Amino acid sequence: MNLKRVGNQTVVFANPPVILSSYSVVGPKEGQGPLGKSFDKVWKDGINGEKSWEIAESRMLQEAMQGAMDQASIQKEQVDFMLAGDLLNQIISSNFAARQMALPFIGLYGACSTMALGLAVGSMLIDGGFAEKILVGVSSHHDTAERQYRLPTEQGSQRALSAQWTVTGAGSVLLSSSGVGPRITSATIGKVIDFAVKDVNNMGAAMAPAVADTILNHFQDIQLQPTDYSLIASGDLGGVGLGLACELLKQSGIDTGTNFTDCGVLIYDDTQDVHAGGSGCGCSSVVFAGDILQRIKAGELNKVMLVGSGALHSPTSALQGESIPGIGHAVVIEK
Amino acid sequence: MNLKRVGNQTVVFANPPVILSSYSVVGPKEGQGPLGKSFDKVWKDGINGEKSWEIAESRMLQEAMQGAMDQASIQKEQVDFMLAGDLLNQIISSNFAARQMALPFIGLYGACSTMALGLAVGSMLIDGGFAEKILVGVSSHHDTAERQYRLPTEQGSQRALSAQWTVTGAGSVLLSSSGVGPRITSATIGKVIDFAVKDVNNMGAAMAPAVADTILNHFQDIQLQPTDYSLIASGDLGGVGLGLACELLKQSGIDTGTNFTDCGVLIYDDTQDVHAGGSGCGCSSVVFAGDILQRIKAGELNKVMLVGSGALHSPTSALQGESIPGIGHAVVIEK
Repeated sequence: MNLKRVGNQTVVFANPPVILSSYSVVGPKEGQGPLGKSFDKVWKDGINGEKSWEIAESRMLQEAMQGAMDQASIQKEQVDFMLAGDLLNQIISSNFAARQMALPFIGLYGACSTMALGLAVGSMLIDGGFAEKILVGVSSHHDTAERQYRLPTEQGSQRALSAQWTVTGAGSVLLSSSGVGPRITSATIGKVIDFAVKDVNNMGAAMAPAVADTILNHFQDIQLQPTDYSLIASGDLGGVGLGLACELLKQSGIDTGTNFTDCGVLIYDDTQDVHAGGSGCGCSSVVFAGDILQRIKAGELNKVMLVGSGALHSPTSALQGESIPGIGHAVVIEK
Repeated sequence: MNLKRVGNQTVVFANPPVILSSYSVVGPKEGQGPLGKSFDKVWKDGINGEKSWEIAESRMLQEAMQGAMDQASIQKEQVDFMLAGDLLNQIISSNFAARQMALPFIGLYGACSTMALGLAVGSMLIDGGFAEKILVGVSSHHDTAERQYRLPTEQGSQRALSAQWTVTGAGSVLLSSSGVGPRITSATIGKVIDFAVKDVNNMGAAMAPAVADTILNHFQDIQLQPTDYSLIASGDLGGVGLGLACELLKQSGIDTGTNFTDCGVLIYDDTQDVHAGGSGCGCSSVVFAGDILQRIKAGELNKVMLVGSGALHSPTSALQGESIPGIGHAVVIEK
């Protein structure tokens, strides 16, 4: 078999996996944002009648995965693997969702890059001949993330202007070896990059170098230009990080022009008091599962690169004075 | 391409990936145990001159991965992907090790099942044609795990007799599409199983049903018997969990006979005051990278099933009254 690999970090699929369906569930704030209409389901509040935000997040992830299966009229028994991850310690949202799904389960951790990582790994497992259907699911929740990473939301602390707002949302994508839909044609697995940013209220800056590195490596590996893509969407650098990533790419001779945006910039608007934009695994997963896939299917976007960006620190590592390592994983989706 | 999948949960490799080399680093307690001589390196203490146990654990993981590459005379530039995971929140041991390795990095979370999960996913990526060399690395550390999951070790709390002792250790395995060495011939990805065990001091009981389920499904999928294997090693159920898993298998008509053991039972002896045995991602990773692979290479073991077992709870989920979901992932290694 020929190695399906080009350059240092990129794999190119021989039989590009099909995105059969997708589903997104979000909280009220995301539903009120500019992409509100693109989401499949908007919860009235963040707890949804559950006894804790953590259980609510796990339930939201389950709803997204069930929704993706329903959209494609696929039964659980037809799914070969479930790939999932989230931000919570020991990825409990995913573990508890996997308990309910009862599918062979591969747990991933890539912080906010997890949807792109899941799509990349899932595509390799399908193109490699190990599965016909794979369900990828990723979630985050504003209140679970705030109290784990920062402060209890009840405290009402003032947020830094560079801080991002963790999205309450879960997105799921159903990948298939056959069928009709957009296809994942290549993926670039990122390296961990650390520019010694220690400010946990500026994760966009911590992740921007990794996103820039992955985009740069993708184009070097695959011998293409940003103009060959109708959209490059990172997720989730926010406004601060997006500017920095553009600047870093420019310094490396890559002009992304106007078709480089960020899921964290798209999901809220200026009236929503989110400061630097959205973040959290849920952000890029719901923007991708909703708006971006809809625009690809509508023919508005022909070839999209989703670059999931993860800040790979923990509260413990930050308190111990460590800087914030970043990672970016890219997948290319074509109509 | 034919689907490399049999039954519900098992994949069978067309070109079984080769285990080119492995390396294990452990703490002093593990070095004094019955498998002490099988480990490549024994640290004099758990901190190794680092400023925190967390940084020490990450350093141990790096040493294991570097050691595996050195054993095979493989340079970092020849490695296509690094797959790693650990027990710490946001898998920081792996993230910080990946920062130093600067390899395309896929972060996994499977709790103590992570070595088996990494070997399974890594083998699929190689057999699928996406990589020639993959470095799998997994770590745990007694003092980082105790203070994160239970109590500060300085407190000297009395431990329950059913409790296991988290291993300070890091194991790494270098997988290759070609070369000489034992081969990974099949893998069974586990489902999350929960028998409503809520006692975080009895994780063996929480994980036993998942291990039994995966072993049962493996034999059903692949149409073989326990007697077709020279060893079935779970990791890490400890003494309590191993007995329960045997009992559950017996109830399902599977008699594992005398060739079913557990890495958590093997790594310490009765004089070491560890109660139910060893646990932690590091446990099965160093027992596999050390003793088991050495016995395969020596011809003492011909065909081994490693069943990594993970308890997928978090301190938060336990405090919220949730039970402990378990998972078991199996890989089969043949000389």
